[in-house]
Amino acid sequence: MSPLHVVILAAGQGSRMKSSLPKVLHSLAGRPMLHHVIGTARQLGAEKIHTVIGHGGDKVREVTTESLVNWVVQEQQLGTGHAVAQALPHLPDDAHVLILYGDVPLTRADTLNAMVESLDDSTLGLLTVTLDNPQGYGRIVRDADGKVTSIVEQKDASADQLAIREVNTGILAVAAKHLKTWLPALSNANAQGEYYLTDIIAMAVEHNLKISVSQPEDPFEVQGVNNRLQLAELERWFQKREAERLMTEGATLADPARIDVRGELTIGNDILIDVNVVFEGKVSLGSNVSVGPGCVIRDAVIADGVHIHAHSVIEGAVIGNNAQIGPFARIRPGTKLAANTKVGNFVETKKTVVGEGSKINHLSYVGDASLGRNVNVGAGTITCNYDGVNKFRTVIGDGVFVGSNTSLVAPVLIGAGVTVGAGSTITRNVEDNELAVARARQRNIEGWERPKKTD
Amino acid sequence: MSPLHVVILAAGQGSRMKSSLPKVLHSLAGRPMLHHVIGTARQLGAEKIHTVIGHGGDKVREVTTESLVNWVVQEQQLGTGHAVAQALPHLPDDAHVLILYGDVPLTRADTLNAMVESLDDSTLGLLTVTLDNPQGYGRIVRDADGKVTSIVEQKDASADQLAIREVNTGILAVAAKHLKTWLPALSNANAQGEYYLTDIIAMAVEHNLKISVSQPEDPFEVQGVNNRLQLAELERWFQKREAERLMTEGATLADPARIDVRGELTIGNDILIDVNVVFEGKVSLGSNVSVGPGCVIRDAVIADGVHIHAHSVIEGAVIGNNAQIGPFARIRPGTKLAANTKVGNFVETKKTVVGEGSKINHLSYVGDASLGRNVNVGAGTITCNYDGVNKFRTVIGDGVFVGSNTSLVAPVLIGAGVTVGAGSTITRNVEDNELAVARARQRNIEGWERPKKTD
Amino acid sequence: MSPLHVVILAAGQGSRMKSSLPKVLHSLAGRPMLHHVIGTARQLGAEKIHTVIGHGGDKVREVTTESLVNWVVQEQQLGTGHAVAQALPHLPDDAHVLILYGDVPLTRADTLNAMVESLDDSTLGLLTVTLDNPQGYGRIVRDADGKVTSIVEQKDASADQLAIREVNTGILAVAAKHLKTWLPALSNANAQGEYYLTDIIAMAVEHNLKISVSQPEDPFEVQGVNNRLQLAELERWFQKREAERLMTEGATLADPARIDVRGELTIGNDILIDVNVVFEGKVSLGSNVSVGPGCVIRDAVIADGVHIHAHSVIEGAVIGNNAQIGPFARIRPGTKLAANTKVGNFVETKKTVVGEGSKINHLSYVGDASLGRNVNVGAGTITCNYDGVNKFRTVIGDGVFVGSNTSLVAPVLIGAGVTVGAGSTITRNVEDNELAVARARQRNIEGWERPKKTD
Repeated sequence: MSPLHVVILAAGQGSRMKSSLPKVLHSLAGRPMLHHVIGTARQLGAEKIHTVIGHGGDKVREVTTESLVNWVVQEQQLGTGHAVAQALPHLPDDAHVLILYGDVPLTRADTLNAMVESLDDSTLGLLTVTLDNPQGYGRIVRDADGKVTSIVEQKDASADQLAIREVNTGILAVAAKHLKTWLPALSNANAQGEYYLTDIIAMAVEHNLKISVSQPEDPFEVQGVNNRLQLAELERWFQKREAERLMTEGATLADPARIDVRGELTIGNDILIDVNVVFEGKVSLGSNVSVGPGCVIRDAVIADGVHIHAHSVIEGAVIGNNAQIGPFARIRPGTKLAANTKVGNFVETKKTVVGEGSKINHLSYVGDASLGRNVNVGAGTITCNYDGVNKFRTVIGDGVFVGSNTSLVAPVLIGAGVTVGAGSTITRNVEDNELAVARARQRNIEGWERPKKTD
Repeated sequence: MSPLHVVILAAGQGSRMKSSLPKVLHSLAGRPMLHHVIGTARQLGAEKIHTVIGHGGDKVREVTTESLVNWVVQEQQLGTGHAVAQALPHLPDDAHVLILYGDVPLTRADTLNAMVESLDDSTLGLLTVTLDNPQGYGRIVRDADGKVTSIVEQKDASADQLAIREVNTGILAVAAKHLKTWLPALSNANAQGEYYLTDIIAMAVEHNLKISVSQPEDPFEVQGVNNRLQLAELERWFQKREAERLMTEGATLADPARIDVRGELTIGNDILIDVNVVFEGKVSLGSNVSVGPGCVIRDAVIADGVHIHAHSVIEGAVIGNNAQIGPFARIRPGTKLAANTKVGNFVETKKTVVGEGSKINHLSYVGDASLGRNVNVGAGTITCNYDGVNKFRTVIGDGVFVGSNTSLVAPVLIGAGVTVGAGSTITRNVEDNELAVARARQRNIEGWERPKKTD
Repeated sequence: MSPLHVVILAAGQGSRMKSSLPKVLHSLAGRPMLHHVIGTARQLGAEKIHTVIGHGGDKVREVTTESLVNWVVQEQQLGTGHAVAQALPHLPDDAHVLILYGDVPLTRADTLNAMVESLDDSTLGLLTVTLDNPQGYGRIVRDADGKVTSIVEQKDASADQLAIREVNTGILAVAAKHLKTWLPALSNANAQGEYYLTDIIAMAVEHNLKISVSQPEDPFEVQGVNNRLQLAELERWFQKREAERLMTEGATLADPARIDVRGELTIGNDILIDVNVVFEGKVSLGSNVSVGPGCVIRDAVIADGVHIHAHSVIEGAVIGNNAQIGPFARIRPGTKLAANTKVGNFVETKKTVVGEGSKINHLSYVGDASLGRNVNVGAGTITCNYDGVNKFRTVIGDGVFVGSNTSLVAPVLIGAGVTVGAGSTITRNVEDNELAVARARQRNIEGWERPKKTD
């Protein structure tokens, strides 16, 4: 079997994006468009992925370091035919070559597999799509037997041809040896002075190759992105499919049109996801997890039975079984909550390990800390982990009760079973089972006159 | 007039839901699908609602304790005809019987009333629907006079019949005495080996009953739920109708596609509801209320002129006239705010009664507390209501000024007109008009060396 | 060239709005519908804008104080012809007159310009629209040459006429002198007993004026608002267009259907706006700004490179280059953040000026304050700016380190380089480089017995 080589055209500037970022680096579902296309090529089992770069090429190279990708520089952008020609020296003679585009990010691997698998040396595989409105696209002209005979551009099309709704996507596959013959023979004698890859279709017909046509399930698979409206359209289509996947796998979504998955979300059974939740990076949700409205969850492992209430923001955390989070919780990286823990409203944690059954219910900052089991952290507790230059840890033993409005000045060790009086600033270690207080005596003063309004 | 008995089929497993929850218990707009159907049956004035349960029947029973519902167990699921047959012993001979489905939750009572009211012993009422795409449904075959003659299943339909877009919904009404004759006569000699309720249509025709057809206003009324995509579709349809109801009643919605009402929402005049608000349980909004974006409100009574700012979460609360809430307020159950109160950002209240004109503007936890009128609670105030095992109340008199960063260790009484100095931890009661302070002396120390960077 | 006078009909009650607010004052994209229409008239270069008011006229007048607007009172609402007639005394004989409607808010100036510019004394400019469903509207009847001959109301239309999909919008332009002849000649001999402006079309035809027809690009341009469903439809159309404008100008929107711009939003290059962001008033975003999900931003100037994280609420603020805001930040009016500042979660600022590089990262209220450069404000810091009647400022010098859970009782000056110990209540000024502490001694007490469960 011939090895598959993929050529991805990714050299365009994308001036209609109005951006300093090269077009193929614009994000779709949390990663660059080109990253999607490279991923698809990898799924197809490509031996090598030749990615033709030009505008902003140095930035584009940063999209991946994987060795499967061979960066090919196109110094001048002289058309799609010219772009593919830059990759010719890297294509083995016996290879089959699939041409993809860095700004056509969502073609499914299944769709392309159908093209690639049936390919032989006497066939050119062409991906076409039938559009309600074919305006502007090259029409697929077929003879009486339905055989493709040519592609006619919009401006060259007759009235009959303009009525054709099957159009060229630009995606095609053919043996490398043909490309090596045909591409050097392309002409730029056209209005734009460019070498068009499309022109090889006519060459293939002329050389009696069979044009084998496939079509995607959905036109969005072959939609290119030239501006941010199209980017947004594809983003929403991607998210719609992702929502359908989650529902099919057993998640209840309050509104499939109001969820965003930008990365990899895996789920257990009987998940409830309320409106406007955003997932980023790698997130896994165990079974019987509920996520409230407006939550943002990034790179997190959430175990079974966890309830995340409205407007919580979680990043880089591991959350144990049956934990209760939020509303309005801010869980920052390095947080590890054991089973049956609670982190409530207006609480921030960071690099904090919380033992089973412990609770931080309200208005606290607990950072760089370790809490044992069954600790109760009162409202308004602050771990003073930073002295302006260094960060220190706070260690709290099992069963500690931290009174409200307490400051714990790290480094500090609070032994098991300790009680800390409300309003204390704790600067020294406390032994097991001690009561620690740091509090001035209350004075009640009679005859106090309230301030008067000045000016 | 014949009494109406409703039979609801609710025994199915719903394996395509991929859930451990019986299908009919999946929530739509905040309550189980079956609960919607039982509610509809009650609206129709049913004398008894026979609910046929099977898979997860014990859980299903918990959906309601009302005596109108008679639970009928179908031990084996042998088809819809078999399911209805389980209810036969409970149906009086003179009853009219309406067959509904626990997984078809949103049929309007008006639609069913039209069927039920015109029923007599020589008529079978059949609910059909005309679909753009009838694929998969049983087609309604009519004779030249428009009379229904049979229902033909997809697989048995001729090309002509396949073109029929009027299909069977499964919902029908007929006299009990006919069911008692027909159901025992059903055969399971079919591919699935099941007893199909649909087969009684042919029997009705054979017995010269008139088939009286009604149709719903909207196909969603008869859409069944077999998977979570369909559940989400119905959820959004329900919410769309609810949004339209609210707008018709005089609410301005910033976006009718971004509101969720899961329960019972009643409104006064000139309400503004911004995007992404979620209402749950029983909520009433007075006139001239505005609700900011992202708010979640559950079981609350909100009086006239209240402004609830962005991202506030309110539950189990009574809010007085012209109160100002949020943004980022968390009002928990048992909160009762009088008129002209303010609860501001990052404030949590719980079992707290706040008198007229009082303010808790910033970053406070005020729980298990009673505040008089015109109290000003400074930022960072915490009621220390919990000693680890017991909860105690804080009582604050009229006109008290609580300085910022104060801890109030309950039980404690703060008399009227008291001033509490900022940063105090108050553990003893304070008499009217006293100043209470509990604060260490400030020392300013020269020659202080800042910590150096370690490691 | 004839001066342009615009007459805006704004006297209707709008009973289907179910509102105590006059219909034309209902907001669309953050400002009254009438305000949109007046703005459009101003864009057209109107010499005067005669606004006919009736119901709630006094409230309506408050919509603008600009002298271009002449308020004309229609005491009794006797029809559209009668309404325009009230403006006749104010129309110069040589004027061209454009009739607009206060409840048709979104006609584009370009659309109207096309009508107005080509107008001469022998022409009546008529805006029509072709609808898929023309039900209820007056049909535009044309002769064999395509010349408009009359407008036929729904109830008077023949079957042929009912099939016409081109309908009258009510918007028209004609020389004042014609109006002065025609309007007094209108009859109210019709079912409603009203004087209809539409009837002047027949008069124009009779007087051999040319009827010059224009059409809007989109039917929403001429959609009137009679109820809140229509108001919401127009709101969403407005927001859709606004989203498209932002994307065309180079903003990436995570979801164009989930953004609200209620006012004037200007943007730099390479902006990212996540889902459910609401902009109000006048907001400018510099280049490379990102705005996280659920943010609400009102009247703010945001410089280049600023990142605003999820669920932040910003109002009346100026934010410097590369500042980091949120999540869950509440920036209130009068806040001015210099470059490279950070305001983090659960932090509120108000009338606060923050110097370059300073950080208020967590759970703080910093109001009525000035912070120098490179200040670090610890978690739980509160400026006690209010003594119950007066507000005072807190001034903090460069390089200050404020320990956590600190209360700063204003007025107070904290010199440059000062360190404030955690948990302190600072009531007196602190000189440069001093350490200030106000903290009770910590006591660790052995043999402490935890409280027991009472009751």
